[in-house]
Amino acid sequence: MIGSTTWVVADGYIPATSTGPAPDLTSHESVCVLNAGDADATVQIHVHFADRDPAGPYVLRVPAGRIHHQRLNDLRHPEPVPLGVDYGLVLRSDVPVVVQHTRLDSRQPANALMSTIAYAAPGGGR
Amino acid sequence: MIGSTTWVVADGYIPATSTGPAPDLTSHESVCVLNAGDADATVQIHVHFADRDPAGPYVLRVPAGRIHHQRLNDLRHPEPVPLGVDYGLVLRSDVPVVVQHTRLDSRQPANALMSTIAYAAPGGGR
Amino acid sequence: MIGSTTWVVADGYIPATSTGPAPDLTSHESVCVLNAGDADATVQIHVHFADRDPAGPYVLRVPAGRIHHQRLNDLRHPEPVPLGVDYGLVLRSDVPVVVQHTRLDSRQPANALMSTIAYAAPGGGR
Amino acid sequence: MIGSTTWVVADGYIPATSTGPAPDLTSHESVCVLNAGDADATVQIHVHFADRDPAGPYVLRVPAGRIHHQRLNDLRHPEPVPLGVDYGLVLRSDVPVVVQHTRLDSRQPANALMSTIAYAAPGGGR
Repeated sequence: MIGSTTWVVADGYIPATSTGPAPDLTSHESVCVLNAGDADATVQIHVHFADRDPAGPYVLRVPAGRIHHQRLNDLRHPEPVPLGVDYGLVLRSDVPVVVQHTRLDSRQPANALMSTIAYAAPGGGR
Repeated sequence: MIGSTTWVVADGYIPATSTGPAPDLTSHESVCVLNAGDADATVQIHVHFADRDPAGPYVLRVPAGRIHHQRLNDLRHPEPVPLGVDYGLVLRSDVPVVVQHTRLDSRQPANALMSTIAYAAPGGGR
Repeated sequence: MIGSTTWVVADGYIPATSTGPAPDLTSHESVCVLNAGDADATVQIHVHFADRDPAGPYVLRVPAGRIHHQRLNDLRHPEPVPLGVDYGLVLRSDVPVVVQHTRLDSRQPANALMSTIAYAAPGGGR
Repeated sequence: MIGSTTWVVADGYIPATSTGPAPDLTSHESVCVLNAGDADATVQIHVHFADRDPAGPYVLRVPAGRIHHQRLNDLRHPEPVPLGVDYGLVLRSDVPVVVQHTRLDSRQPANALMSTIAYAAPGGGR
């Protein structure tokens, strides 16, 4: 059992503009989930904002032994994640997984990247 | 209860110059706080320096279920955070939160980004 | 004994194009392993994908007191890591080590960098 | 008591070339130490390499309540840290501190940045 069942990303922000060829170099954020275990994972994501109730759950399924890299820009259900707006993420999985968060910002004519292993709540955060 | 009540950022530095349109691409640092709990959070920040006593507390309020992304550049009380000066941050919250720290450096004619989940003191760090 | 025996990187992706002189500025990813102990380490890496079984093990040997920075681009056995494809890594060592993961992306005409200490499974993740 | 007494950075590398005005935009790496406690800290750093014995100790003193951001490029005793060479760091402090590691890479004509909270050995790593 490798990982945690609760993960948090505090700095979410999808830049609203881009330079360079789409879709590879479109400004975006991704949550990257690795499921190293033997059971498939169902991951529920809630998006938290500064001035409204959270959106979600967004649901990802990550089979046993697989990864899933999800661009936040591409989520549509229950609603798109707005561009150019501050947010944060809480991810809850039914089995332990590992979560990393990455932003590619191509607003200026070159890429900028940031990434961090997300915060793993000890004991799952319950 | 997701998070910790004590968080540390050791590498604080707001570049003093910028390229690109303000305010979005102004060089800046942000502390991003996510409060996943049911109680509002009051976060006190102290800014530590190399050669003087800490400044603060700066006070942020993060309602239950909300995020707050605070540009350090924008803090005014009790005093502005100086540009181009090394510093560090200690954040103490009355309820568990999660803290991420991000710098956008646009001194050269493109963006550079760095980000990391801050250090969460086990047991709150008391 | 400094470190953990199980480490995870969830966001693996080697950009397929580059600008700038090779090999230094070729887009690449590295896993950086530090063995601070008195015994040599054997590290087995499995590469996890979205839509196929994991590849591996790739085997690194890190002598006592040494570091080993391994470009994922350079792995050949049992098979190369594909460029432009999402993946993740699970590293298992026979003695505690510390793992950091870094990407240099030079697809646009400047470098972008990201790095994070990998996820250390508590208790080794067994 | 906030922090740990043993910290590890696995991906050390000081790019050997730079663009932009020195010294601010010279390619460099820094270890950033925050001492939030009431006692002064003495930090001993060992630099680990791929193919030789570690160098050090390099000694930093971080007074109570202060930060110290140390460019690795500037260390001279017992010996300079070589440019363009892979290395890693083990930092041991006599009191708990927090360590963050940052690289600015200006080899191409724009900045790239990466940063991460270093690995904090549980229980100090002894």
